[in-house]
Amino acid sequence: MSSLAERARELDAADPLASCRKLFDLDDSVVYLDGNSLGAPPLSVAERMQDVVRNQWGRRLIRSWGEGWWTAPERVGDRIAPLVGAAPGQIVVGDSTSANLFKALVAALRMSKGRNEIVVDSATFPTDGYIASSVARLTGATVRAAPLDSLELNANTAVVLANQVDYRTGRAYDVAAVTASVHAAGALVLWDLCHSVGALPVDLDAHGVDFAVGCTYKFLNGGPGAPAFLYVPTRLQASFDQPLAGWNGHRVPFAMTPDFEPSPEIARGRCGTPDILSLLALDAALDVWDGVTIADVRAKNLALTGFFIECVDSLVGSRVSVVTPRDSSRGSQVSLACEDASPVMEALIARDVIGDFRPPNVLRFGFAALYGRYTDALRAATTLADVLA
Amino acid sequence: MSSLAERARELDAADPLASCRKLFDLDDSVVYLDGNSLGAPPLSVAERMQDVVRNQWGRRLIRSWGEGWWTAPERVGDRIAPLVGAAPGQIVVGDSTSANLFKALVAALRMSKGRNEIVVDSATFPTDGYIASSVARLTGATVRAAPLDSLELNANTAVVLANQVDYRTGRAYDVAAVTASVHAAGALVLWDLCHSVGALPVDLDAHGVDFAVGCTYKFLNGGPGAPAFLYVPTRLQASFDQPLAGWNGHRVPFAMTPDFEPSPEIARGRCGTPDILSLLALDAALDVWDGVTIADVRAKNLALTGFFIECVDSLVGSRVSVVTPRDSSRGSQVSLACEDASPVMEALIARDVIGDFRPPNVLRFGFAALYGRYTDALRAATTLADVLA
Repeated sequence: MSSLAERARELDAADPLASCRKLFDLDDSVVYLDGNSLGAPPLSVAERMQDVVRNQWGRRLIRSWGEGWWTAPERVGDRIAPLVGAAPGQIVVGDSTSANLFKALVAALRMSKGRNEIVVDSATFPTDGYIASSVARLTGATVRAAPLDSLELNANTAVVLANQVDYRTGRAYDVAAVTASVHAAGALVLWDLCHSVGALPVDLDAHGVDFAVGCTYKFLNGGPGAPAFLYVPTRLQASFDQPLAGWNGHRVPFAMTPDFEPSPEIARGRCGTPDILSLLALDAALDVWDGVTIADVRAKNLALTGFFIECVDSLVGSRVSVVTPRDSSRGSQVSLACEDASPVMEALIARDVIGDFRPPNVLRFGFAALYGRYTDALRAATTLADVLA
Repeated sequence: MSSLAERARELDAADPLASCRKLFDLDDSVVYLDGNSLGAPPLSVAERMQDVVRNQWGRRLIRSWGEGWWTAPERVGDRIAPLVGAAPGQIVVGDSTSANLFKALVAALRMSKGRNEIVVDSATFPTDGYIASSVARLTGATVRAAPLDSLELNANTAVVLANQVDYRTGRAYDVAAVTASVHAAGALVLWDLCHSVGALPVDLDAHGVDFAVGCTYKFLNGGPGAPAFLYVPTRLQASFDQPLAGWNGHRVPFAMTPDFEPSPEIARGRCGTPDILSLLALDAALDVWDGVTIADVRAKNLALTGFFIECVDSLVGSRVSVVTPRDSSRGSQVSLACEDASPVMEALIARDVIGDFRPPNVLRFGFAALYGRYTDALRAATTLADVLA
């Protein structure tokens, strides 16, 4: 145990991202391992909110729409773009992940004349499946669940909706390989990046991904319920025909013409007026990425989750089983199957080790590379051992 | 002119709502007449945002979801309810007006078996028509525009989408009469309250309205792009079958089951995770309504718009024509048709009189009863006369 403690201190001391932690408003007394559900607040957010409310809204009033608000969905999208390997002009921020899934699935079906099947990753976060079912019901498509490891696609498969990281187990999938296999079957792929953006390399453009959505309140620290994003590559924008065709996606919104004519650009992914407070909170939160590479983030979260698994093996042993892959095919979380997982997590939280519970029996511990510490990983494992003892 | 100035001062002095203005963060040097597009910030918002970011998010982190965040869409909905004559449990806040129109139109068509036509108020704000067309395309319904004054409905009309106040002219329609005529034709009615909520009496329950949506950033002062609301009366909730069926509308969201089972309550109108920062800014903004009745608000905005029309008649004369009804069938704005309206509005704004321009030729001046002043109305008319001279 003392050697784990020594190693944790050494690893923290050698951590090239250690200085990022001071950009966040975090209590040192709390071990926060739920940044995969709600990222911690960057310090810049509170200050930016004051500026937005008191100055932009208060002093400039309606004029602020012409001074940066109207174009914020695309501008903030361009700030997310380098984190997912996208060139500018291909990401728009707004609405929820669920709403963006709805847009992308309908658009994908409309691009896939003669094909009528939506295949959903069988380990998907539930909302993806719910939205796929709703889209199928409206469009006459069918929905089939299939494991990403053994996708069996056919000439009727229009689109495959895949999660890069399994929210429950933490397993990470190979975006390049899955995308290639979907394309080989003549279908389109829609990636849900909720559990990977800001944690794993994605490279959307390089892999020829067709569509992606993701959330900004986990590893991007945009705040509770921060708006989601939608990626549509330039090559597909002209044919991206989405059903939530509100006035914000119009080619000339303020012409207020009776007929809808979509923007020729990524703005056609917009629906209604964007939530500016949440959007600009996210904009401020993205400042923490200045000078940080996803490669460094990935190296650290693999090391950090690996160290946590080692601590769990050593201190907790067989009272839990590690659900997350021990090799590098994992995201930035560690999931432990555990009897009575729900009350166990409550006991951990009561001791200021904050993870979360996912049914039926999973303890989830998320590790955010920008503020996570090896000493915290050790404390979490030690506390878990105490709780289970 | 001096008698108008005297009257303005007397009217301000006698205004029973005059004390509400001090609840807002407004420059006295600016005449703000665009609260029908973006309401001014209540002072409570900036402070609340600090608490939400620093304490709720910063200190409580993920735990805040169980300490008021998760239920905020319904709780804030219940605060809007008395302003639109709705009993509790019938309004949910979240998503944009456009997204909520999409939900309600699809749900209405699904309730209207054998009927297949959407009728849209021909003077509607554009997004309503865009969304209606999108819904029609997905569902096989048809869309027809018709003036609310002479709706001709038939046995195929499923739903009528009506705006209580015409955004361009400021004309207000009789919710009770239109609702009754739609019901007499066996159809459902969906009211868009964007330009009336917080300004006009609505009485949704009393008139037996079927659905309503509205925005919260105009007369409710919720902030730029604040989340919209959706009203579904208790009697229709069990059959409200909406297509943006994301996990937040599930009966037991955290069970994370593969099949969607809608909440039996108004929460079934939810889609994805709510934008908490924007939602709690709105929550704070609603504090200004404590102790205020819509009857008082309506009396004042009729008087204020009436006084402005009188000032325009007297000072500006025939250089503009008043588009807004001179009788009480108007909302809380005055629209003036004017040659070169766009540069005229720019010149007004340069002189700190802020209204807006709507194509093709309309100057819009919105009057918010909670912070509008008769002296400001006079100054706006005087400045307009100067600009046009």
